[in-house]
Amino acid sequence: MLLASLVLLSTMLVSPALAQTDPLPSWNDGEVKQAIVKFVQSVTDRSSAQYIAPEARIATFDNDGTLWSEQPMYFQGFFAFDRVKALAPKHPEWKTKQPFKGILENDMKAVAAAGEKGLAEVVAVTHSGMTTDEFSQIVKDWLGQAKHPRFKRGFSELIFQPMLELLAYLRANGFKTYIVSGGGIDFMRVFTEQVYGIPPEQVVGSVGETRFEMRNGKPVLVKLPKINLVDDKAGKPVGIQRFIGRRPILAFGNSDGDLQMLQWTAAADGARFMGLVRHTDAQREWAYDRQSSIGRLDKALDEATAKNWTVVDMKRDWKKIYPFE
Amino acid sequence: MLLASLVLLSTMLVSPALAQTDPLPSWNDGEVKQAIVKFVQSVTDRSSAQYIAPEARIATFDNDGTLWSEQPMYFQGFFAFDRVKALAPKHPEWKTKQPFKGILENDMKAVAAAGEKGLAEVVAVTHSGMTTDEFSQIVKDWLGQAKHPRFKRGFSELIFQPMLELLAYLRANGFKTYIVSGGGIDFMRVFTEQVYGIPPEQVVGSVGETRFEMRNGKPVLVKLPKINLVDDKAGKPVGIQRFIGRRPILAFGNSDGDLQMLQWTAAADGARFMGLVRHTDAQREWAYDRQSSIGRLDKALDEATAKNWTVVDMKRDWKKIYPFE
Repeated sequence: MLLASLVLLSTMLVSPALAQTDPLPSWNDGEVKQAIVKFVQSVTDRSSAQYIAPEARIATFDNDGTLWSEQPMYFQGFFAFDRVKALAPKHPEWKTKQPFKGILENDMKAVAAAGEKGLAEVVAVTHSGMTTDEFSQIVKDWLGQAKHPRFKRGFSELIFQPMLELLAYLRANGFKTYIVSGGGIDFMRVFTEQVYGIPPEQVVGSVGETRFEMRNGKPVLVKLPKINLVDDKAGKPVGIQRFIGRRPILAFGNSDGDLQMLQWTAAADGARFMGLVRHTDAQREWAYDRQSSIGRLDKALDEATAKNWTVVDMKRDWKKIYPFE
Repeated sequence: MLLASLVLLSTMLVSPALAQTDPLPSWNDGEVKQAIVKFVQSVTDRSSAQYIAPEARIATFDNDGTLWSEQPMYFQGFFAFDRVKALAPKHPEWKTKQPFKGILENDMKAVAAAGEKGLAEVVAVTHSGMTTDEFSQIVKDWLGQAKHPRFKRGFSELIFQPMLELLAYLRANGFKTYIVSGGGIDFMRVFTEQVYGIPPEQVVGSVGETRFEMRNGKPVLVKLPKINLVDDKAGKPVGIQRFIGRRPILAFGNSDGDLQMLQWTAAADGARFMGLVRHTDAQREWAYDRQSSIGRLDKALDEATAKNWTVVDMKRDWKKIYPFE
């Protein structure tokens, strides 16, 4: 406790000095960076009409495409496909059954042809049947060894350095940073604390049902193949209200799946910041928007333009994309 | 920020002095108080084998019967019945329809005879159909004027002073304090921050479905008459894992509805504290346990005895029950 106090104290004492240095070094100077800094300064300045008390400084971030990459498919998809391959020896029937056959043969067209129903089957067999503790260990093991096909690096290395700086900058200014993602809540919680500094209790995501039961006198929670919340699109404000119970004053997304979260954030009184990450850099990351099946940015881009929300242009606004660059 | 820093700093500087004073003045000296203090000291002492890092210091508390009273019925029941009376002019059909007729005529036998199905109807008409913002305002207005029939005081005055001290003591020692209650999450969030110092994002409760929709261009969340989570009994570990994503190291309840939460807390490795509040004081509060239909304490009491969990005897252990005494 004393050590923690001293660290905290020293942080406070150097705060004025830090304010002189750049809290967002990987962001190019320009309108976007200025808008972020201006917003944070105005809501934290007690003499400002826009001042907002620390407990109300809730910031919500989408994950896929906003905090880390999401191409050529959502990273949780790679996890699910790798799990199918790992489980295949116990499921000889998958050799002839789509979409499992397609996954085992790396035939993505066949997988896509199985549609949402096929994908739901894959999610069910890879994300349920085990206890929550077992699932966390499976994800942890996978993250420790799986590599992204393009970058040949661990998936948790493909996070956006400028967004890490933004998260840290917000926290240093009294914000509580949350993830609000369509991704699986149990999947994300394995790495968000280490990778983003966001603890499990500040992660909102899609939720599966679980069942409490006793196994050899020890209680466990078993993951069931039944969805409780799809935390995407109109499900994002639902998830925010359910898990946080307060409205964000800052929200960041990158796709139409984030539109309702941004609308929900924008609609309250007081200073608000709505941001979109636009993927414009095919060389360093990817470039896609209105036509993409993954992370489509179409309606949300129109609304951002109409309502003057902040749109980050990766190519223009980010000096650096990934920490390892 | 500066002011907050100074306040925080002064808190830190006086901490060693405070450690000399009694953090639990409304608790009588004895085994229970000693067990609490010993547990907190052992998990916060860096030189102790039981030391637990601050981020893992999660404490979960039931609400009804643990943080405030729950007799002669759950306080949310009074809210629901008062709402039925307030809404009655718009529902002439309730004059002849149970359990509404019974509520309007204060005929509790008729209400009870309508059983769970009848109660579910009451919950539906009083807890859905409005937006989340409208519901919060309704609860707030009700809390501001409703009086408990025995004490003639506001319901939020019937909170347990010793438990307020325990919550504050835990927070001062780096714990994050949560409510995990069978009560409605939207109902509790209206008052938990002011009354217990527990912010909305640290309240887990029973959850109803909501629907995001646009009304006159403004997004709202409409409360629906459909249950998403019953955060009671086996639902408590489910709620803890879903909302917090970490296992508590301390949990406090008062009834069989809390048994699984206590089992879930007890089953992990490391130092753990499981507590039950036993209502033994008919004069100052109420006395009930194995035979009570509200807050029945039967199986959990047996398990507490068998496993040496801490059982608070209100009459013996609490100098004071309510803050107003």
